[in-house]
Amino acid sequence: MKKYKKVNASILIIGNEILSGRTQDKNIAFISNWLNSKCGISVKEVRIIPDEEKVIISNIQILSKNFNYVFTTGGIGPTHDDITAKSISKAFKVKYEYHEEAYRILENYYGRKKFNDGRKKMAKMPKGAKLIYNPSSAAPGFKIKNVLSLPGVPSILNSMIENCKIYLIKGSRVYSQTFNLYTVESNISKQLGLIQKKYRKFVDIGSYPFFRLGKVGVAIVTRSNSLSKLNRVRKDLKKLVKLKKLKVLKI
Amino acid sequence: MKKYKKVNASILIIGNEILSGRTQDKNIAFISNWLNSKCGISVKEVRIIPDEEKVIISNIQILSKNFNYVFTTGGIGPTHDDITAKSISKAFKVKYEYHEEAYRILENYYGRKKFNDGRKKMAKMPKGAKLIYNPSSAAPGFKIKNVLSLPGVPSILNSMIENCKIYLIKGSRVYSQTFNLYTVESNISKQLGLIQKKYRKFVDIGSYPFFRLGKVGVAIVTRSNSLSKLNRVRKDLKKLVKLKKLKVLKI
Repeated sequence: MKKYKKVNASILIIGNEILSGRTQDKNIAFISNWLNSKCGISVKEVRIIPDEEKVIISNIQILSKNFNYVFTTGGIGPTHDDITAKSISKAFKVKYEYHEEAYRILENYYGRKKFNDGRKKMAKMPKGAKLIYNPSSAAPGFKIKNVLSLPGVPSILNSMIENCKIYLIKGSRVYSQTFNLYTVESNISKQLGLIQKKYRKFVDIGSYPFFRLGKVGVAIVTRSNSLSKLNRVRKDLKKLVKLKKLKVLKI
Repeated sequence: MKKYKKVNASILIIGNEILSGRTQDKNIAFISNWLNSKCGISVKEVRIIPDEEKVIISNIQILSKNFNYVFTTGGIGPTHDDITAKSISKAFKVKYEYHEEAYRILENYYGRKKFNDGRKKMAKMPKGAKLIYNPSSAAPGFKIKNVLSLPGVPSILNSMIENCKIYLIKGSRVYSQTFNLYTVESNISKQLGLIQKKYRKFVDIGSYPFFRLGKVGVAIVTRSNSLSKLNRVRKDLKKLVKLKKLKVLKI
């Protein structure tokens, strides 16, 4: 039997603006999709927490223990509420100090005269951190142990994500197929449950209602490391579609 | 000195589709905004977890202990991957059984002939649960102890949220003001830090970069239970705007 390598991650979103509902998060879906499609890494837990040192410290300690990687977003800018780097230093009991290369990058970017204290703060990191380069606004993210820290602004984060790759061990890719059926969940739940039972060791089957153009539908999403197993589930789902005389929607 | 009543909540999003990045969550911002503006309740932590019984149980136990309320979304439909109600029953060590009124509501909605096993499953809840009525698709959510369980489909959840009110104790409203300035964070970080320090006991000040029409800006968001304190911060911020000769953007 083929062996699949499972690598997982968690995401820690640090920021009152997301918690309060003021800002709609866009980073979770982006990071999760990227990790899965480019690195074969599955996100298994996400937490959103306030900009509070104690809370950041305890979450970093727990998540870095429980998952292969932890991605943090937010709190690495120049203002008083940017306390991610300092808190992670405390979580790992290492010094919080200037990173030489980060300092040089930022000084170069702003020019010596305009390199004020706020900007200098962005060069402070946990001792021993490695840089995650930032092609759009210079200020680097960093990686320490199994934690990778990125900024909260989605466009900047997106531009940096490829630079995380060198720090990640890849897992086996998770393949996914989607069937959009014009029906209601409760019309197919019994048969779907039986199919899930049959393949429970290899394939995850999810069922998600949707509404489109005034019609009700169900998206059946199958996931597996094995493409051949997915194709076997596909055949069983096609039988179910035939049995129930359903319409498959193409999107 | 005026006393403010602090009531907090956490949100537990249950669903592989959000974790995998396939679906962009919309419920967090909606619930958090509603709780804050209508009930004076602040969301202090959000977790997104997979449809796995053990994981749901441990998270319900931890969050219900740490926060005044826990809102769960997802996993209360008719299919095999809908295991929220069963898992919450186990978390609180109560029976998982038919709720009489929920059973009647659903039987009435579908008609006795079409009331199949999948649909009946939606009437199963933790023993002692109270219903959260659903005006859009009948299947009720439920409340047990300090946990309120809602469906994952945003339009249905939105239609039910007002029916949560009877189960909630209100807190003091958190007021918020936003200043959108055309500047970069590092230009104002020092002064902003000093203002935050001055009002640290009463007001939270957050700073969030934005990009609009090709320009860079910073949104300064202030939050407090006290409107008069917020207005004092507003005055200080206006001084900062004048000092730095900044432009305030109206949105």
